[in-house]
Amino acid sequence: MATNKQIHLVSRPHGEPTVDNFKLVEAPVPELKDGQVLVRNHYLSLDPYMRGRMNDAKSYALPQPLNEVMGGGTVGEVVASKSDAFQPGDKVVGMGGWQEYTVISAEQRGMLRKVDTTHIPLSAYLGAVGMPGVTAWYGLVKIIDPKAGQTVVVSAASGAVGTAVGQLAKVRGCRAVGIAGGPDKCKYVVDELGFDACIDYKEHKDLKSLTTALKEACPNGVDGYFENVGGMILDAVMLRLNAFARIALCGMISGYNGEPIPMAAPQLLLTNRVKLEGFIVSEHMEVWPDALKELGTLVATGKLKYRETVAQGIASAPEAFLGLLKGRNFGKQLVKLV
Amino acid sequence: MATNKQIHLVSRPHGEPTVDNFKLVEAPVPELKDGQVLVRNHYLSLDPYMRGRMNDAKSYALPQPLNEVMGGGTVGEVVASKSDAFQPGDKVVGMGGWQEYTVISAEQRGMLRKVDTTHIPLSAYLGAVGMPGVTAWYGLVKIIDPKAGQTVVVSAASGAVGTAVGQLAKVRGCRAVGIAGGPDKCKYVVDELGFDACIDYKEHKDLKSLTTALKEACPNGVDGYFENVGGMILDAVMLRLNAFARIALCGMISGYNGEPIPMAAPQLLLTNRVKLEGFIVSEHMEVWPDALKELGTLVATGKLKYRETVAQGIASAPEAFLGLLKGRNFGKQLVKLV
Repeated sequence: MATNKQIHLVSRPHGEPTVDNFKLVEAPVPELKDGQVLVRNHYLSLDPYMRGRMNDAKSYALPQPLNEVMGGGTVGEVVASKSDAFQPGDKVVGMGGWQEYTVISAEQRGMLRKVDTTHIPLSAYLGAVGMPGVTAWYGLVKIIDPKAGQTVVVSAASGAVGTAVGQLAKVRGCRAVGIAGGPDKCKYVVDELGFDACIDYKEHKDLKSLTTALKEACPNGVDGYFENVGGMILDAVMLRLNAFARIALCGMISGYNGEPIPMAAPQLLLTNRVKLEGFIVSEHMEVWPDALKELGTLVATGKLKYRETVAQGIASAPEAFLGLLKGRNFGKQLVKLV
Repeated sequence: MATNKQIHLVSRPHGEPTVDNFKLVEAPVPELKDGQVLVRNHYLSLDPYMRGRMNDAKSYALPQPLNEVMGGGTVGEVVASKSDAFQPGDKVVGMGGWQEYTVISAEQRGMLRKVDTTHIPLSAYLGAVGMPGVTAWYGLVKIIDPKAGQTVVVSAASGAVGTAVGQLAKVRGCRAVGIAGGPDKCKYVVDELGFDACIDYKEHKDLKSLTTALKEACPNGVDGYFENVGGMILDAVMLRLNAFARIALCGMISGYNGEPIPMAAPQLLLTNRVKLEGFIVSEHMEVWPDALKELGTLVATGKLKYRETVAQGIASAPEAFLGLLKGRNFGKQLVKLV
C-alpha cells in the first residue's frame, strides 16, 4: 500500500503563522469502500483564505480543525474507483486537501468534478478556470458591473484573482489599473496581461504618494475597485472614487495576521454614494457555470493569461503558503505533488 | 411692498460652524413676472445635509454660495400668482430657502408641489411625509430590504429620519432598535414610537460598553443598519452584524465638522459579507411616489408618529441649525415663520 504524505495543522498562530503550526504526517492510503474514489493529487492550491481558517474565530469559513489534514483545492487523477461515475485516468478537481492522495465519496455532490485537459492545463482549474477565476468574475461582473470606458482598479493585481479581474475588465472595454508589489509584477501586469497601468505600492510609503500615483493612473477617477488587500491601499483608492463607484470586497490580506487596518475615511462611501459588498465565491454557486464558461473559453483561446509559482512536493506547502501571505509568489501559488 | 427677511451664508466654517457664518438680511419682495408664484413660507426645514453645503469641498451637494440665501426645504402658502398652475391659498412644498417669502417659477418642474392638508399637517411635508421620510423609506426598503423577524438598528433614532426608519421596520414585522442621545429620547422612541429597544449612547463611553448594550438589545444580531452618525457607533454595530447584513449609509454627522471618524474594523464587512450603500434620496426620485404614498397613509392614520422641535422666526434659524448638529433637537427641527 502506498504511503500518503499529509500536512496537518497542529497549532494556531498568534499573529504571523510559522512552519511550526504545520506538521508533515505519513499515513497509509485507506482501502476504498463502495462508492469511493482514490485520487492522486497532482497540484495543491494555496490561497489567502486559508489564513482565516487557521484561526479559531468566527468567520465565513469554519476553522480548520487541529491535527487534521489542512483543507484545500486540488487537481489530480483518479487512480482507483469503486464508483461508476469515475474511471482510473479521469482528471478531476476537488477539495483534496494538503496531501498526496485523497479518498472521496463520489456521490457527495460537488466534491469531485471531471475536467477536460484537451485545451486547458490541469493546473488552471485551480486558478484562472477555478475558484480564483470565478472569484474575479463574480466580484467584477456581479458587484462592480463595469461599463465600457469605466476605470477598474484591482489590488494584488498579479495574483491569481487580480490577473483575472484586470483581464476580464479589459474584455469589457474598461481601463484596468493594477496595484502590485515590485517592478517585475507591475511590468508583467502591463506588458503581458495588457492592463493599462500598474502601481508598485512598495514605491509609495505614504497615503499621499500612493494617491498621487493613482491620480496619474486613473485620470478619470475610479468606478470600480476590486479589493484584495485593505489598509492604506484601500484608503488611497477611496480618495479617487467617482460618484456611484462600486467596491467588491474580496480580501484584506494586510490584516490577516490581526494587524489593525482601520478605514481612514468611511464618509467617502457616503459622499460618493458608493456600493460596497463583501463576498465569498463559494456562496454564489449559481454563477459558476456562466463564469467557468467565459473563463475556460478565454484561457483556451489564449486571451486570459496567468502565471504560476510552483513549489515542489507536499513538504514544501507550509513554506510556500507563508510566502504567499507575504506576496512572495508571482501569480497563482501551487504545490506540485507528482 | 412687504419686507423679506432672509438668512445668508457669509463665511465658511473651519470645523464647527458658528452663528457668525450667517447673516440676517432684509430685502424687498420682488415683483412677480409672468409664470411666477409668490409663496409665504410657513415652516423652514433644518437638516444635517446643510452642514456639508457650508463647505467649499467636493461632495454630493454643490456648495452653498456665499452671500446668498441659504437653501432649504419649506412649506407655505401661495399669496400671489402669475401662473395658472397655482392659486392664492394653495398649500405648497418646495425649496424656498431660509427666508420668509420665495418667488418661484411655476414651470420649473419639481420646484413647487401642491399638498393636501386635510389629513396631514403642513409641517409633516418637511418631515415624515417629506424628504426625511422618503430618505428613511429608501434606505430601509431599497437597501436594507428587511424580512419579517429580522433586526434593524438605526442611529439618531429620535430624529426626523430615524423615527420613520424604526416605525417602517415595525410595519414590516422587524425588531426595531434605536440608538439615541439621552434617556428622554430613548424613552420616547420605545414608549411612543413602539421600537423594541433604544440604547442611550451617552451612557456608553467606550466601544465595549456600547457593543455589550447592543448585544442585549439585539439578541439575534443585526441584519440591517441605517446609519446617520458614524464613528464609534458604527464600529459597535459592525461588531454585532449578522452574515449578509445590509448597511444603508445615510449620514455620518459625527464627522461633519471634519473630525476624523475612521472605521475600526472594515474587515467585518468581508467576514460578514455585508452590503453597504451610501445614498442621497434626491438621486432616487423614482421611489418618491411609492414612498410618499405609504408615508402619507401611515401619518394620516396615526400609525407613523413624529415629533417636532420648532424654533420661532427666521432669525432663530442659525442657532437652531447649530443645535441640530449637536443633537439638541428632539425629532424634526423646524423654524416657524408665520
